[in-house]
Amino acid sequence: MQHEFQLYHYWRSSCSWRLRWALDYKSLSYEKIHINLLKDEQNAAAFKAKNPAGKLPCLLIDQKPFGESLALIECLEELYPAKPALLPKDPFDRLFARQLAYLVMSQIQPVQNISVLKKYSEEPSKQKEWAAFWITSGLSAYEALLKQKTSHDDYSVGSSLSLADLCLIPQCYNARRFDVKMEEFPLILAIEANCQKLESYYSSHPDRFQPD
Amino acid sequence: MQHEFQLYHYWRSSCSWRLRWALDYKSLSYEKIHINLLKDEQNAAAFKAKNPAGKLPCLLIDQKPFGESLALIECLEELYPAKPALLPKDPFDRLFARQLAYLVMSQIQPVQNISVLKKYSEEPSKQKEWAAFWITSGLSAYEALLKQKTSHDDYSVGSSLSLADLCLIPQCYNARRFDVKMEEFPLILAIEANCQKLESYYSSHPDRFQPD
Repeated sequence: MQHEFQLYHYWRSSCSWRLRWALDYKSLSYEKIHINLLKDEQNAAAFKAKNPAGKLPCLLIDQKPFGESLALIECLEELYPAKPALLPKDPFDRLFARQLAYLVMSQIQPVQNISVLKKYSEEPSKQKEWAAFWITSGLSAYEALLKQKTSHDDYSVGSSLSLADLCLIPQCYNARRFDVKMEEFPLILAIEANCQKLESYYSSHPDRFQPD
Repeated sequence: MQHEFQLYHYWRSSCSWRLRWALDYKSLSYEKIHINLLKDEQNAAAFKAKNPAGKLPCLLIDQKPFGESLALIECLEELYPAKPALLPKDPFDRLFARQLAYLVMSQIQPVQNISVLKKYSEEPSKQKEWAAFWITSGLSAYEALLKQKTSHDDYSVGSSLSLADLCLIPQCYNARRFDVKMEEFPLILAIEANCQKLESYYSSHPDRFQPD
């Protein structure tokens, strides 16, 4: 079945990048609407009528709005499971892929997002220390989980891209903004290098969508 | 297929409650091992060998350890889809259930967990203000999403329990610890009252597992 997609996103939001990447990887075309987080456009009444959480991304599927990037990626996976797949077939590989994805989604990204940083402190240096601390802690856990595996594949789980990579790589992009020492994570860097061989990495990359 | 489960949990951890509830709702028996977060037992080497993230819950499935409560609930759902189901059948109802679950999992719980509170401030009053702020903000978004629906059912999505409720209700328990004004959320309170009619609500409830 053919669906119509409209994406509300912000160029540098890591959660927006996850969803752009999933859409591009599955070759699904969609209209893009840019919402400027720095101008607080996500809290405007017109946008909050679509996503009361005031968060990006928000995807309209056949005019109906939904939020939460990973919930949307799971839905795209159910609607288009083989276009190609973003989850492995074995139930325990699927579990591991989701464990890694949710580690980024729940333990790293939310604690370093703009609204939390602003409430934590108005000082940029304090914000940076806070963000770098949580990102380093989370990526260390991710690297340790990869290390536990007996064999190391091209991607986080096996030899093809999964939703774990879609969370990891945009988080690495954020990590560099906060000067996290990425050389501490060699397994993550190897996965990132493999992702950079994919067309969909570039077509969904934040730098392509910076307005000015 | 029969699997063997061992759960590492902490009585008052809301993420541990989610998973206990899912196991009980599906009538899966499991061994419980209590990890005391207040004594920092989750950071002991023996536990971090199982879950390098140093987070609860952690579930051993046939001796193999996995973390992240929602990843585990998705796996239980795949292994035992009808025992009974924790996700609706329609793909857009599934999307909405996950959107609500992930709102709690990514926008509320992580910002008010013990480790973030400790890093934010050593003062209990400041910790409480921070936690109440983020819980109120997240539950307001949850309530607004429920309000958008044309009909209001017994549970967050439709007439049976889903993983959205498994995230919401333990978060309400935490909300009261931080004196969040729950009367602002009538639709959430109605769902909570319906959940309290379920045997699995009580069998998994934190108060049953307090060690002293």
